Amino acid sequence: MKILVTGGAGFLGQQLIRALLERGKLRLDDEEVSIERIVCFDRSVGVLQDPRVENVAGDIADSSVVQRLVDRDTAAIVHLAAVVSGTAEADFDLGMQVNLDGTRLLLETCRAVGHRPRLLFSSSIAVFGGDLPEIVDDSTTPTPQGSYGTQKLIGELLVQDFSRKGYVDGRSVRVPTVVVRPGLPNGAASGFASGIIREPLAGVEAILPVDPSTEMWVASPRAVVGMFLHALELPAADWGWNRSVNLPGLVVSMEQELEALRKVGGEAAVALVRHEPDEDVLRLVRTWAGRFDTARARAMGFRADPDFESIVRAYVADNSEAVRIAARAG
Amino acid sequence: MKILVTGGAGFLGQQLIRALLERGKLRLDDEEVSIERIVCFDRSVGVLQDPRVENVAGDIADSSVVQRLVDRDTAAIVHLAAVVSGTAEADFDLGMQVNLDGTRLLLETCRAVGHRPRLLFSSSIAVFGGDLPEIVDDSTTPTPQGSYGTQKLIGELLVQDFSRKGYVDGRSVRVPTVVVRPGLPNGAASGFASGIIREPLAGVEAILPVDPSTEMWVASPRAVVGMFLHALELPAADWGWNRSVNLPGLVVSMEQELEALRKVGGEAAVALVRHEPDEDVLRLVRTWAGRFDTARARAMGFRADPDFESIVRAYVADNSEAVRIAARAG
Repeated sequence: MKILVTGGAGFLGQQLIRALLERGKLRLDDEEVSIERIVCFDRSVGVLQDPRVENVAGDIADSSVVQRLVDRDTAAIVHLAAVVSGTAEADFDLGMQVNLDGTRLLLETCRAVGHRPRLLFSSSIAVFGGDLPEIVDDSTTPTPQGSYGTQKLIGELLVQDFSRKGYVDGRSVRVPTVVVRPGLPNGAASGFASGIIREPLAGVEAILPVDPSTEMWVASPRAVVGMFLHALELPAADWGWNRSVNLPGLVVSMEQELEALRKVGGEAAVALVRHEPDEDVLRLVRTWAGRFDTARARAMGFRADPDFESIVRAYVADNSEAVRIAARAG
Repeated sequence: MKILVTGGAGFLGQQLIRALLERGKLRLDDEEVSIERIVCFDRSVGVLQDPRVENVAGDIADSSVVQRLVDRDTAAIVHLAAVVSGTAEADFDLGMQVNLDGTRLLLETCRAVGHRPRLLFSSSIAVFGGDLPEIVDDSTTPTPQGSYGTQKLIGELLVQDFSRKGYVDGRSVRVPTVVVRPGLPNGAASGFASGIIREPLAGVEAILPVDPSTEMWVASPRAVVGMFLHALELPAADWGWNRSVNLPGLVVSMEQELEALRKVGGEAAVALVRHEPDEDVLRLVRTWAGRFDTARARAMGFRADPDFESIVRAYVADNSEAVRIAARAG
């Protein structure tokens, strides 16, 4: 069988594909099915090379492209392709095209093929915003305060309705802010939460654009990939009619991030972080939720990271080529 | 100034246009503006003729059509055009085109004109469904269980985000089931709630496809039109960031409807109602909410009907040509 990963060339996509290749199998409906092929779809070709990986580059909002991505062998789809929060806010049309039209097109393509594939949609805690309770739980109404969160929530509603109609077996997971993202900063407004760890560990200065007391709901790339696989393998009955869930994560303040950075990279690393408030970032971040009670996800077997220091240590272990200061300190 | 009413040839649209013509003015931002022209847009031409009414027929999902509907003189838009619940469930593509694409196209057109018109979107209590609390209130999460409710909720999210971005001054009202609808039955799954009043009063047999104890959240056409005008005239500040609201209505069981029918039309009218369960209708209706606490709307000044009997009597007064039995009884 075949798995399609959209946005597969991104760092999460690549890490997910690597995990799928290592496993070699996926448990679908009490059956271990071996993964013969993974289609890695993105704007550009993924770095990861493997005989089982087919790299396809193209536009997720182009129907002639998307229609070629899914066929009757495509047993599972992980839909990660998205324009991130800062970009979706700055370029409204691009966000609508990729995040809304792209998702709809993918769902319509599955419907047209007619084999009801399992489809995992990567949504975001950015669906929450506005007048939030102190702790967001499974009953909190998503009221996004940005175009990215709006488009992700619309994607969830489409996944929900296409599943109800029997066109796909969909499930949406609201992913915490992923920290530490490797590589270059992307357009995500939440990027600083990774930047203040990643850049200092590489010996580069980083800007903290929010108050150090700012709390965020975060998860490591490892934890998120693990939860993606779990979400994909969970039987449809475990989801019931509600195909969206808030994923577990950790509450971490930027102060606590710097504390973990100190433990792993020493004072030299922390000294590279400069506090410089940015009103554009603040305006978006203020509307996000920092604390969650993810009872439903935990009951469904989703698991978060143990603590923030292990997130930083996992980053160092997985990205040794990008780490200078920790290597010296460690 | 000009007002655009989409779905204007429908019975609610016609009643709204009549009310706008009678008033002749609209209060926008502490200023009484006189209504020079009303564009009545629908699939077919509206019956109501008036020098101030311009009838335009066309497809709301056709961009070349919609782009001609809005210009800088269009100070207010009431967007009623929709495919109703039963039809949206039976014809998924048509529902997506009209309810989703049509709404988006209208919003994009306003954005392109760039004058930030006031836009009222007629949403529905069908956005609620699934595991609902006994009383739905302003904090209840909309989790639609039908394509119509899904498309309406997506429309609300678009209105919300286009308003936040400053492209329109939007507001969405979740309309209760409108009872008594005059005219022929439409494709709405909730149509029986009107049918068991309208048909017997016309001397025609009607089917009740659900249990008589079934409760619904209803409002009369008169009350809904009044609430539309109120929603349109409320200053943006009264909405704040949350541009959606559940409208007040009445809880009524089908038994209570028949009781009111007896009072207005006598036993002869009630004898024309036959109970004949319909599983297709039941499946949808079971997922709808029957009881609401609409505190926010009431605080904003929205008002519902006093009781169900006055709804029936208002129907008789407004539709004398369609009423035979009540005329005899009254």
